[in-house]
Amino acid sequence: MNAGDDVRREVAEWWATSVSRIEPGVIELRGRPIQDLLGAASITDVIWLLLRGERPSERQAALLDAALVASADHGPHAPSIAIARMSATCGVGLNNAIANGVNVMGDVHGGAGQQCLEMYTEIRDLARDGAGVAEATRSTIARWRERSRYLPGFGHRFHPRDPRRDPLVGLVERAVADGVVDGEFLAAGLAVEAAIAPVPMNVDGATAIIYGELGFPAPLARGLFVLGRSVGILAHAWEETQGGRRIKGPIPPSITPAYHPA
Amino acid sequence: MNAGDDVRREVAEWWATSVSRIEPGVIELRGRPIQDLLGAASITDVIWLLLRGERPSERQAALLDAALVASADHGPHAPSIAIARMSATCGVGLNNAIANGVNVMGDVHGGAGQQCLEMYTEIRDLARDGAGVAEATRSTIARWRERSRYLPGFGHRFHPRDPRRDPLVGLVERAVADGVVDGEFLAAGLAVEAAIAPVPMNVDGATAIIYGELGFPAPLARGLFVLGRSVGILAHAWEETQGGRRIKGPIPPSITPAYHPA
Amino acid sequence: MNAGDDVRREVAEWWATSVSRIEPGVIELRGRPIQDLLGAASITDVIWLLLRGERPSERQAALLDAALVASADHGPHAPSIAIARMSATCGVGLNNAIANGVNVMGDVHGGAGQQCLEMYTEIRDLARDGAGVAEATRSTIARWRERSRYLPGFGHRFHPRDPRRDPLVGLVERAVADGVVDGEFLAAGLAVEAAIAPVPMNVDGATAIIYGELGFPAPLARGLFVLGRSVGILAHAWEETQGGRRIKGPIPPSITPAYHPA
Amino acid sequence: MNAGDDVRREVAEWWATSVSRIEPGVIELRGRPIQDLLGAASITDVIWLLLRGERPSERQAALLDAALVASADHGPHAPSIAIARMSATCGVGLNNAIANGVNVMGDVHGGAGQQCLEMYTEIRDLARDGAGVAEATRSTIARWRERSRYLPGFGHRFHPRDPRRDPLVGLVERAVADGVVDGEFLAAGLAVEAAIAPVPMNVDGATAIIYGELGFPAPLARGLFVLGRSVGILAHAWEETQGGRRIKGPIPPSITPAYHPA
Repeated sequence: MNAGDDVRREVAEWWATSVSRIEPGVIELRGRPIQDLLGAASITDVIWLLLRGERPSERQAALLDAALVASADHGPHAPSIAIARMSATCGVGLNNAIANGVNVMGDVHGGAGQQCLEMYTEIRDLARDGAGVAEATRSTIARWRERSRYLPGFGHRFHPRDPRRDPLVGLVERAVADGVVDGEFLAAGLAVEAAIAPVPMNVDGATAIIYGELGFPAPLARGLFVLGRSVGILAHAWEETQGGRRIKGPIPPSITPAYHPA
Repeated sequence: MNAGDDVRREVAEWWATSVSRIEPGVIELRGRPIQDLLGAASITDVIWLLLRGERPSERQAALLDAALVASADHGPHAPSIAIARMSATCGVGLNNAIANGVNVMGDVHGGAGQQCLEMYTEIRDLARDGAGVAEATRSTIARWRERSRYLPGFGHRFHPRDPRRDPLVGLVERAVADGVVDGEFLAAGLAVEAAIAPVPMNVDGATAIIYGELGFPAPLARGLFVLGRSVGILAHAWEETQGGRRIKGPIPPSITPAYHPA
Repeated sequence: MNAGDDVRREVAEWWATSVSRIEPGVIELRGRPIQDLLGAASITDVIWLLLRGERPSERQAALLDAALVASADHGPHAPSIAIARMSATCGVGLNNAIANGVNVMGDVHGGAGQQCLEMYTEIRDLARDGAGVAEATRSTIARWRERSRYLPGFGHRFHPRDPRRDPLVGLVERAVADGVVDGEFLAAGLAVEAAIAPVPMNVDGATAIIYGELGFPAPLARGLFVLGRSVGILAHAWEETQGGRRIKGPIPPSITPAYHPA
Repeated sequence: MNAGDDVRREVAEWWATSVSRIEPGVIELRGRPIQDLLGAASITDVIWLLLRGERPSERQAALLDAALVASADHGPHAPSIAIARMSATCGVGLNNAIANGVNVMGDVHGGAGQQCLEMYTEIRDLARDGAGVAEATRSTIARWRERSRYLPGFGHRFHPRDPRRDPLVGLVERAVADGVVDGEFLAAGLAVEAAIAPVPMNVDGATAIIYGELGFPAPLARGLFVLGRSVGILAHAWEETQGGRRIKGPIPPSITPAYHPA
């Protein structure tokens, strides 16, 4: 090996990855040739594979699908959707409109699931260490409430009771009964809900249970929410382009925003 | 109805949609209550549903899955991936890193599938109008070559033969044999490939066949590519965050970009 | 020179630039040490320097300033502003909110100045080639109208007469009188306005005159518009963060977007 | 006033602003008709005006200009620049390329100035409360070091001594001598530098002094950095488009990123 190889290797290592191997004529995802995946794996399987290095079982993939489906759309009220629709009327590509929607799924708009999973994980860890779920939940809630009056994943400013809560919790309950998952995150979620009744669990609280049960770390709760919501963003942005409106503002042109001198 | 209702309706109509209905306690996607979808529909089903208003058959969903999987990842060579990795080291959210990757899937990086589907559609339309596939292909290629030496969806700067071509074409052939799809776009794609041999079809040419056979309009070839590639973008961005590097530049710090006075 | 140096050079050349030279302890912008610019150059001077390699005269910089100021803000009606305000409420950085606003300044929202400058350039070129301004304008307008009923840079959906037109045209007229610029683009702009009266020139038509007179190529009309508008985007996004609202949708929560089954 | 006016007002208030007033034929920035600003105000003046509601003095504007110029460019090493260059080769608009660069100026890449200004502000407040600058600096440094070994605004991974430090500090010193600014933030910055010698102040530490002296709150240190750096991002993205390369990856195609199975 000569000096050129050394530099070449240094540069190649700067971009090293375990996710995929791409050589002329070769595409491998986590060591699987792409040929073996096409027709044999769903995109949900590949989400799991690329993030974790292995294929999910059918039941694991079904739980992941449910969480993704639950996140897919929440109508034009959601900034992620409204922004994409407005963007699509400004003469940019559909990809740019989607990017703008994804870009606002930040700590406040997209982060509740991540924070909720962190909270559940704290409860799970304390419970495992011998505190018991009830006490672990009590002390964890107290700690989180020092930071904020609201607990991530519970209550909803729009839905009195989030219609996604029951079906998602039901799916996890069946998965626990069938030994697909352990149920520790389900226990944590239900314990929080009981402790702060009558404030019910919302979609973030329910999908955080699924992500926790499936073994995803908390930051991926946001990453997976992005994947799910991108579907709704695309659908709404596409619908907007079909209408042909140009430079869509947030309110009808007949109404002028108020001006208040400072 | 009073004047307040009129204004209210004008504002509500400014954001009207057929994609989803969201009311307190209600989430419906294309008229389906979300409760009926959770546990019963994969995210692939919901992609189809939100874009088209109906559920796909199992075979249709499988074809869509194959196209999405084919698009999921192409390694750190791809700007969409490299940019997301660099972004993830700059102190922004995972969603911001994904957005940056999606944002570059423009006419050149993400548009070949869309353009290829437009080309196939022209061939299909001419063939239907009586020209026959061979003549329709010949004249369409000639027309496209006036604009550019390269035909979208054919040839690859990296792969001598794209490893995704054969499995994807094989899936469509089986779907045609089983009456799942008509085969007109497959015929168009194979006719182009034959006409410009030995330049082979690439992943954009093969997925454009699938999107065409499934009835998606050309702009959605880009939209769906975005959904598929977002999976790889997330996986690579997440991997980069695990490494802990900060403010990752494109090349190792030991090498300084060249400066050439103008 | 050994093989390692060859590879190192290849990598350094991949990122070669004439814009700036950065070495340990050294920052040069277009060959000027940063120390010589700090306190001696305005940001407007540096815009010119980085894009063109030289410093502007005071009068040139003043014209550029006027064009930038004209673009700075157009209120929350503008998607670039509204989107940034909504983004700023979602738990992302101020930079992410600005990026979202900039991202929608596409062909339709940000491209009119660029297109108008292309149109003026065609008129200028034809006039120089001997057609005379009047005939060059007539034939150019006819050609552009084949593509679209509207001419870029003329008419405004909101302002009957754009209040920026007169001051900007006046500044160019004085600059022509003083020999600062040639006046060919001013002549083109006024000729178009006369030909399509009573539709008046708008801000894009007036700033395109300035950019043309100053020698900027058409795509930079959009680039410079982005720099100017970023100022307004920042101000509005910052104001929104001061209000403390979270997850701001496009319309008040009391109004629900209309749902129309397809 | 009827019910329609009530709804209309509610919607108008949802988008209320103190920044600008836009009515048909009227554009006012912070109460100034745009006509009065064109030709009379630089873009730097308008940055100040839109953020603060008043015009700066000439000396204040000159200090702001110096901070903006200092931030304008740091070569292709910087992710904000490299990402914009790669983006510009993917078939997206110049505005999309700029947006991608701005989008990565997050807590790590763009946040040091903001954090440094927070640190200075704490020192200033403690010193004002009677602690004296030396003791205020000592205790503030100690508190910040509990969070991180590095102090924002000091030291540079690339420059042994940042060439922007001396000119910027010198400008502030002259402004203090002339009574343009108070000097409290200068005192804080120099005190930190003395306390942690030989680690020198970098550009973020020096511009944070300027922003603090001029009365900008800490989050605007990032916002203003974005405005300054956008200039360099535009220049580099524009240069890249002139080269005509398509789908530029981070390293030359001759080098393939390393693959390491997990």
